[in-house]
Amino acid sequence: VKRRAQVVGLGLVGSSIAGALRTRGWYLTGSDLEAARAGRAAELGVVDAVGTDTMAEIAFVATPASAVVPAVLDLIAGSELAELIVTDVAGVKGPIVSELSHPRFVAGHPMAGSEQEGPDGADPELFVGATWVLTPTDETDPSAFTALQSVIASLGADVVALSPDRHDELVAVISHVPHLTSATLMSLAGESPVDHAALMRLAAGGFRDMTRIAAGSPAIWPDICRDNAGAIVPVLDRLIVQLTEVRRIVADGDRSALSSLLERARSARQNLPPRGVRPVAVAELRVVVPDRPGVLAEVTTLAGELGVNIYDLEIAHSAEGPRGVLVLVVDAALAEAVVTPLRARGFRVSWRTAS
Amino acid sequence: VKRRAQVVGLGLVGSSIAGALRTRGWYLTGSDLEAARAGRAAELGVVDAVGTDTMAEIAFVATPASAVVPAVLDLIAGSELAELIVTDVAGVKGPIVSELSHPRFVAGHPMAGSEQEGPDGADPELFVGATWVLTPTDETDPSAFTALQSVIASLGADVVALSPDRHDELVAVISHVPHLTSATLMSLAGESPVDHAALMRLAAGGFRDMTRIAAGSPAIWPDICRDNAGAIVPVLDRLIVQLTEVRRIVADGDRSALSSLLERARSARQNLPPRGVRPVAVAELRVVVPDRPGVLAEVTTLAGELGVNIYDLEIAHSAEGPRGVLVLVVDAALAEAVVTPLRARGFRVSWRTAS
Repeated sequence: VKRRAQVVGLGLVGSSIAGALRTRGWYLTGSDLEAARAGRAAELGVVDAVGTDTMAEIAFVATPASAVVPAVLDLIAGSELAELIVTDVAGVKGPIVSELSHPRFVAGHPMAGSEQEGPDGADPELFVGATWVLTPTDETDPSAFTALQSVIASLGADVVALSPDRHDELVAVISHVPHLTSATLMSLAGESPVDHAALMRLAAGGFRDMTRIAAGSPAIWPDICRDNAGAIVPVLDRLIVQLTEVRRIVADGDRSALSSLLERARSARQNLPPRGVRPVAVAELRVVVPDRPGVLAEVTTLAGELGVNIYDLEIAHSAEGPRGVLVLVVDAALAEAVVTPLRARGFRVSWRTAS
Repeated sequence: VKRRAQVVGLGLVGSSIAGALRTRGWYLTGSDLEAARAGRAAELGVVDAVGTDTMAEIAFVATPASAVVPAVLDLIAGSELAELIVTDVAGVKGPIVSELSHPRFVAGHPMAGSEQEGPDGADPELFVGATWVLTPTDETDPSAFTALQSVIASLGADVVALSPDRHDELVAVISHVPHLTSATLMSLAGESPVDHAALMRLAAGGFRDMTRIAAGSPAIWPDICRDNAGAIVPVLDRLIVQLTEVRRIVADGDRSALSSLLERARSARQNLPPRGVRPVAVAELRVVVPDRPGVLAEVTTLAGELGVNIYDLEIAHSAEGPRGVLVLVVDAALAEAVVTPLRARGFRVSWRTAS
């Protein structure tokens, strides 16, 4: 019997999730407000059926951000399974998580995309090697989190746990402001009608790279900017301050300040972790956790803030009473970096490298 | 007998030019202030010999910008050939061209690069499909220009002629300011020590694309910023003004202004001419040119400002007296766009599509 999943919203990400699960043996039901898009997804074999599967064990809400909360509530209300797990893929997590708290809803954000759109752009391998953020909270049911982690890992993605607010601050720096800057640079280059053709002819690799994300669909950005304005505005302020300093450096011919900026940037760029490269060795951490809410979120988001992916996650129940053991599989090279602060917070942790 | 070329400066671009010519049957002599680098180029077969070939018919100066003028003068003084053609590859053309005017020196700028360095990074196919700007002036010997155009075209590059100042304004928009912005974004992301690891872990494709150029060697940038400060500073000013407006848009939740910015950027990005795609049809333009200085620069840079590449160029001497005929091969779809302004400037032009 195939495992059953539901995808609500068959844009690029929803269709890619559907396709990825279906490729891996799941039975997929998909829905979209646009009937034609759902029909196209079925035609392409991205989903098995169009509609709502009340027997699905997991549901991915891949609608625009403003539609996530009602969609999640509908799914939970309509499901025949008490164990239904629901997640979403919206780019900003704070507003959703603060509006909707439910033990079986674990908000998420796959850090992958493409310039393609809809079911026709679906790529079942889109998430291979990608980082997929999950934002567990004190309310999160640990078994829902571990089950979701395992499904996401099966798509090839690396799960990182972060608190919703921390996620939103980080994506402002790493995604939202770069996107707005890319669009601004492109629009700057595009606004000179006289030299336009010559300008575009000169656009070499660097400019093409920097403006590639500006080619994507703008549809999601008004919601992202509304939902994450609180994090985006301060980052834009810092960017403007720094560019003003760069302007001064160039105007003054301040060679040493320029070299130091460029060296700093180069070294940060070269230290970007390689995408999707699995560690040569992993370690299994066993954390004894008291049976109280929020422990799962505390342990996993602590790892996330340290930049540590969770490659596998399991909850073993302890024979010693009302406690469990959280088993996390992480990069062996980073294990101590996680163990030390966990112990500092009073957790009993043992670990060993695993093969 | 092999044609002979000289390359001065065996960094990435110089080595790639040497390798590209050598692959295409030339005999290459190379030199570099760092003897070890020149030796490495010989060892790798990027050049045939280390030193200076006084019998070379063409010399490429690929030194740092500040060393270009003396290197060009040395080459011209030391050559045994009156017909020696010299060009350079510096990223800013105005200061060099205003300092050094010589009929056989045609300044240039190949719009190609990579994050590699030196002879080990040499790629003989680096220029295939790339735009290579040449900046002829009133002094330029037309036969030097046409010969250089033909050698560059043989490396697979598309020649665009621009005046030195126009080149510098355009690269400020398309290259220098994007580079400085990329470094600023990278440094912004790199400066948060606490969340650094988590931040870097989230860096998905868009951020990697936008910061790729920041990974390149910073060595050339202090010279570029000094030499082109006059064009870079106003573009930085416009960028800062526009980002300040973006900040307002986000802070105010001005959805329509945001959508319009992103749509404008998307449409400009989608209209970038595809890199290195040759036109389906070319046209041969025959321009009757009076025998006076500067005509070649006038005609070719007019095409360049219209974003028109010169795929081939020849000077046919007319039997009718002190005039010549400049034969330009350009994209047939753009031929009229060039012919009309040429005629408006009083040139006699005929053209036909060629197969």
